[in-house]
Amino acid sequence: MITPKDLYNVLSAVVPLYVTMILAYASVRWWRIFTPEQCIGINRFVAIFAVPLLSFEFISRINPFKMNFFFIAADSLSKGLVLFALFLWAKFSKNGSLDWCITLFSLSTLPNTLVMGIPLLKSMYGDNQEGLMIQVVVLQSIIWYTLLLFLFECRAARDVIVQNLNESMGAQKVCEDEVVHVILARPPLELELQSTQGFNKVVPDSTQVKLEEKEEDGKEHHMCMTRCGCCNFEGMCEQSVQACSREEENKKEEKVQRLEKEEDGKKNFEGSTMSSGMVRLILKMVWVKLIRNPNSHASLLGISWALASCRWNIQKPLILQNSVTILSNAGLGMAMFSLGLFMALQPRIIACGGRLATYGMLMRFVAGPAVMAIASVSVGLRGTTLKVSIVQAALPQGIVPFVFAREYNLHPEVLSTMVIFGMIVSLPITILYYVFLGF
Amino acid sequence: MITPKDLYNVLSAVVPLYVTMILAYASVRWWRIFTPEQCIGINRFVAIFAVPLLSFEFISRINPFKMNFFFIAADSLSKGLVLFALFLWAKFSKNGSLDWCITLFSLSTLPNTLVMGIPLLKSMYGDNQEGLMIQVVVLQSIIWYTLLLFLFECRAARDVIVQNLNESMGAQKVCEDEVVHVILARPPLELELQSTQGFNKVVPDSTQVKLEEKEEDGKEHHMCMTRCGCCNFEGMCEQSVQACSREEENKKEEKVQRLEKEEDGKKNFEGSTMSSGMVRLILKMVWVKLIRNPNSHASLLGISWALASCRWNIQKPLILQNSVTILSNAGLGMAMFSLGLFMALQPRIIACGGRLATYGMLMRFVAGPAVMAIASVSVGLRGTTLKVSIVQAALPQGIVPFVFAREYNLHPEVLSTMVIFGMIVSLPITILYYVFLGF
Repeated sequence: MITPKDLYNVLSAVVPLYVTMILAYASVRWWRIFTPEQCIGINRFVAIFAVPLLSFEFISRINPFKMNFFFIAADSLSKGLVLFALFLWAKFSKNGSLDWCITLFSLSTLPNTLVMGIPLLKSMYGDNQEGLMIQVVVLQSIIWYTLLLFLFECRAARDVIVQNLNESMGAQKVCEDEVVHVILARPPLELELQSTQGFNKVVPDSTQVKLEEKEEDGKEHHMCMTRCGCCNFEGMCEQSVQACSREEENKKEEKVQRLEKEEDGKKNFEGSTMSSGMVRLILKMVWVKLIRNPNSHASLLGISWALASCRWNIQKPLILQNSVTILSNAGLGMAMFSLGLFMALQPRIIACGGRLATYGMLMRFVAGPAVMAIASVSVGLRGTTLKVSIVQAALPQGIVPFVFAREYNLHPEVLSTMVIFGMIVSLPITILYYVFLGF
Repeated sequence: MITPKDLYNVLSAVVPLYVTMILAYASVRWWRIFTPEQCIGINRFVAIFAVPLLSFEFISRINPFKMNFFFIAADSLSKGLVLFALFLWAKFSKNGSLDWCITLFSLSTLPNTLVMGIPLLKSMYGDNQEGLMIQVVVLQSIIWYTLLLFLFECRAARDVIVQNLNESMGAQKVCEDEVVHVILARPPLELELQSTQGFNKVVPDSTQVKLEEKEEDGKEHHMCMTRCGCCNFEGMCEQSVQACSREEENKKEEKVQRLEKEEDGKKNFEGSTMSSGMVRLILKMVWVKLIRNPNSHASLLGISWALASCRWNIQKPLILQNSVTILSNAGLGMAMFSLGLFMALQPRIIACGGRLATYGMLMRFVAGPAVMAIASVSVGLRGTTLKVSIVQAALPQGIVPFVFAREYNLHPEVLSTMVIFGMIVSLPITILYYVFLGF
């Protein structure tokens, strides 16, 4: 049974997170303290320094030889179940698609464990449950984000292949070379938590416009972008766009025909198995992205340190320890502040429309925790560990999946809504779960 | 006697501050992660949120009924001695001036107690000496910064009066009205720790140029600026400058004559006593500035809370406490990061030239601690408290005096050098003091 004092303790841990977020929102929207460009500066700092150092600080403190393997199994099983169901749906339903598989996987299984999860679960179930949350954080950043990147890269490769299939039917070899070319020519992506150049490109309206343009021009623009090394992933290089436009003038009559072929191509691709060369190329691309991501470095360094430190019983030198904590102490507050800034820069809280937002909320706050509960019980979790595993699945949407979604331009407005609106509704929902599980 | 272990503990506390600063420097200069505008965003955050919350957090924890009054007396006496000596110099030496009085007072008595002082002195003399440092922080922000503002405003008022004296000889009443007008017409100043619009205006070369222009135009520009409500304190409103320029065309022949008068006026002003109306107006201006300064709010709120909490034995509610600490935890690291960004944006480390820098260093690291030592001993301080009082006087230059100096355009290049170069040389110097005092 949850006492009012328990509830007060939880609120004391969570309300400050919201106060910080609202402070940031107010300082942009009402007090006009920061310009959008200045917000980008703060977000970059958070993404490159504060959050990676925060996750290093947490991860390096765990004992990898004393992980709770039942808890980890439950977490992995729940994610596996969701993935399996989604792939069945993609394969056998006519509504199913790889695109929505990726988005629904993000929505239902990847909550904000580091920033929201650790303080909240600690306040609910005590300091000794912090270790469980850190285990989720480690797995999430090392395994699940990598898998997510892999799925996104599969989709990107599919688009390139489909495009080439249309241009030169059946030239599988050329196709693969093309992917390599595209992969290598593509400029370094912004891999931060809340990336910079595209920060206010997530404005749903403009995204919509961009999407429509692409649809109209039959993906030509998109291909030009990825082939041009001198422009951003989302930005366009004028030169190549002009060149493309000229080509398109000549090709306009073929357009409708081609669009139909593309749709067929996508379906065929999703039905077919990928060649091993293709998989190797996709993995290479995933690797390139991971080694540029400060969060990956932080997780890997953290787990390596944890292993070495527990194996040989060594401590971090005080100077190193203090150098990390001086900025990682800033991580929690700054991450919430950054989230508030992000909110304030969005023209609408519910960017994806009410219907999609409702589905998203159901996936995040009902389906996710439900699958997690089933997986946990079937693995044999009981007591506090079971409660922790369910409540952590009902946290608001994680930020990293949103950053990926924006980078690959796959339903970014849905993810942005879930991050923002999710933060607002999660407080009562998570507390309801907590109270309900307390009986 | 200081053992190597003591020294290692001190380095463990101080080196991380420098690591953070160098990280910021590198991320601008070498890795080009932040643009200047983005740096401004981070600096604004630090100035408006992180540092005020940090000082509130420290100050609200002290017990104002158990201050060390000998320590406070020594601190006040040393500042009083310096002020007295400087005013004698200004009055009786032909080289003396109010301008250099203000700068030398900042240099010799106002170190960086909050960010550098607290962690450093704690590591040197133990956690229970933290209270002493916080007492210095409180006095500095409530009394000494207010006095400094008062001096700056006296100087600003003097410039307005001298100007008016030249325009209409002896019209004392008009003069005061003019000051009111100027004071009220002057737009809100940037009062942050590292203010924003003018951030890279501190570039010494451009400042030099601006100063020379002013000298040439016989202060006309400066007057136009302060009279115009539509422009920044340091920025110029084109319209009014043009208007002034036209006026000046007609007045050019009078210029040399007037410049001589102005010099006489300044000397007369410094020799004369101010009218009570004038003092009231200056105090009003100081008040206007203080109530806009987040650091003043933080100090006053902090001391009020400390008084109330010790008087009626009440504790901060946990939610409030956590809401403050979530961002104040970011204060220390972010302040050092912000200092590194500031360093990186300066074209030169020693902006004021070698000779002035040497004098500045002597004031900061020799004269300041020497006067403090004399004051402390004569007040009767002995033992650890004496050591704390001397070492804290040998900390690098405080940042607030530099912000004021830039705002009022009074030797900003000297203060900027002392902040930047002072940080670099202070580490060995402060440790030398520590080791020397340890014998």
